[in-house]
Amino acid sequence: MGAMIVREVFEIAEKIKNMEIRGAGEIARAVAEALKIQAEKSKAKTSHELWKELKEASKILYNTRPTAVSLPNALRYVMYRGKIAYTSNADLESLRYTIINAAKEFIYNSEKAIERIGEIGAKRIEDGDVIMTHCHSKAAISVMKTAFDQGKDIKVIVTETRPRWQGKITAKELASYGIPVIYIVDGAARHYMKMTDKVVMGADSITANGAVINQIGTALIALTAKEHRVWVMIAAETYKFHPETMLGQLVEIEMRDPTEVVPKEELETWPKNIEVLNPAFDVTPPEYIDVIITEKGVIPPYAAIDILKEEFGWAFKYREPWED
Amino acid sequence: MGAMIVREVFEIAEKIKNMEIRGAGEIARAVAEALKIQAEKSKAKTSHELWKELKEASKILYNTRPTAVSLPNALRYVMYRGKIAYTSNADLESLRYTIINAAKEFIYNSEKAIERIGEIGAKRIEDGDVIMTHCHSKAAISVMKTAFDQGKDIKVIVTETRPRWQGKITAKELASYGIPVIYIVDGAARHYMKMTDKVVMGADSITANGAVINQIGTALIALTAKEHRVWVMIAAETYKFHPETMLGQLVEIEMRDPTEVVPKEELETWPKNIEVLNPAFDVTPPEYIDVIITEKGVIPPYAAIDILKEEFGWAFKYREPWED
Ligand SMILES: Nc1ncnc2c1ncn2[C@@H]1O[C@H](COP(=O)(O)O)[C@@H](O)[C@H]1O
Ligand SMILES: Nc1ncnc2c1ncn2[C@@H]1O[C@H](COP(=O)(O)O)[C@@H](O)[C@H]1O
Repeated sequence: MGAMIVREVFEIAEKIKNMEIRGAGEIARAVAEALKIQAEKSKAKTSHELWKELKEASKILYNTRPTAVSLPNALRYVMYRGKIAYTSNADLESLRYTIINAAKEFIYNSEKAIERIGEIGAKRIEDGDVIMTHCHSKAAISVMKTAFDQGKDIKVIVTETRPRWQGKITAKELASYGIPVIYIVDGAARHYMKMTDKVVMGADSITANGAVINQIGTALIALTAKEHRVWVMIAAETYKFHPETMLGQLVEIEMRDPTEVVPKEELETWPKNIEVLNPAFDVTPPEYIDVIITEKGVIPPYAAIDILKEEFGWAFKYREPWED
Repeated sequence: MGAMIVREVFEIAEKIKNMEIRGAGEIARAVAEALKIQAEKSKAKTSHELWKELKEASKILYNTRPTAVSLPNALRYVMYRGKIAYTSNADLESLRYTIINAAKEFIYNSEKAIERIGEIGAKRIEDGDVIMTHCHSKAAISVMKTAFDQGKDIKVIVTETRPRWQGKITAKELASYGIPVIYIVDGAARHYMKMTDKVVMGADSITANGAVINQIGTALIALTAKEHRVWVMIAAETYKFHPETMLGQLVEIEMRDPTEVVPKEELETWPKNIEVLNPAFDVTPPEYIDVIITEKGVIPPYAAIDILKEEFGWAFKYREPWED
């Protein structure tokens, strides 16, 4: 008999795929929540059966978005704790409890992380600072909002962030807090870097050597910031750090649909020798990054390896907790 | 009695203003043509009267777009020659002939310029090159098309060029010649610079110290090209060189309407503390530019001053030819 997966797991997987649930933190919390619901609603009769279901649910969730590292890290967090319980012969209710508890813990920590990053990062923002940001990052916004709430007079330059205009979300969110915003096209980043004091951006994932994988366009902004001796601060929860990169793996740069760049009806009229390419991310080398702000504290990008070893040390003997 | 300006002058001025006539070369040729028509159709009875009309027409045309240097340069070319004739007491028909001839000469040279730039620039393109370009530049396209027509197997990466999508025009034009095109968002320029062999872009104007004023986003591409040791070649007719910069003047960076960035209906719903800024151009410093390809030959950006002195030497004793 196959494992019985609850409806909510499929629904969450679907929402991640079609990007109704988006942003590394949201995705991570959503998959933790999905495992929690599976444990809660499971009709399994034995811990063996429940464990089989959880592994199956993990695989379904894991396969939704290949590049969002926060997703497998959330699964790892929950399932690693589940695996320890399961292999030490926990009974059904103990295993269920372990999973529910681990998921709650992960969700709580990750929500706290944003707040902690805000507190830590805000110390580096000074009264009068003009800050440039790109895309929509909860962690980066937390830094700016915290500084603003502390009474620091800041202004934020937001890039529109083609092709999916996440800059609009950021601009409106910051404006709703009362922060004055300047909104520009991505290509204007160098023109406005001269009036910029700090760059604060988020990350999709961070590699073992401190390279930052983030929304396409991030690397250009970091590059011109470096050129201007403007500090680049990357706000990133520790679950954004990418364990597989410790073993040499490259992060896959997701290629998304060309119709995000050129609308479908328009693209259909284009000559066939135009190929529209739509990479979701680019890679910013560590030398363009001043600091990474995590909920554990500020680190230089080169210390990413320390975070990885501490958080995911078990990755060295590498097998996913949901694998046999 | 005021000077009698022919209808065509006003029509051309209007088309330049509303950007029906666009692109530095088109604009330059259009104002030369306007002066030619004024000279042809003038009902003036004396050279004095005709000269007054031409000065008046020049001012009307001059005031259409403040930042397009090709426009005053075209006026200078034609009116400088007219002024020499006029001040040496040319009669009505000689002055008329001088103006018509100078305008024809300017138009012919500027059309030839694109072709010459293509021939000269193509020598620097090698078989197998991947070229990145930005915006829509007739001169840059001429370089790529000429190389391709010579049988060189090239591929061109075109950035969409927000906010006005001129990259679409470029992509389709190159594709219509049979050239394979990769089309990307502006933010992806660094990601694709690794596979790029040469950057070829146009210029709106070039300053005395070799800085290139061009479509917003140009400077970011030049910067990352430099970072990658990829040559940046700027294709620019000599009438793009900016005489006033010899006298210290800064080029005005035209601020265009925010509704080019965010559609009007949408912008009206945005909070008032979001300011949308839309600079038309940015400035690329000479150190990021390998060569400027003019119709006179290839120069290092630092030799811009030589072009300026040679072409517009009279700018030193500065008064516009249509001024008293
Ligand atoms: N796909 C990738 N996954 C993980 N690390 C990468 C990837 N691409 C580049 N890097 C690292 O990020 C930096 C990229 O630098 P660069 O290619 O100069 O932008 C280097 O430190 C690489 O080791
Ligand atoms: N508006 C302007 N008009 C003319 N030259 C400029 C202008 N802005 C900057 N420059 C020159 O272009 C270069 C700009 O370099 P940067 O500001 O470092 O990008 C310098 O050589 C300046 O002299």
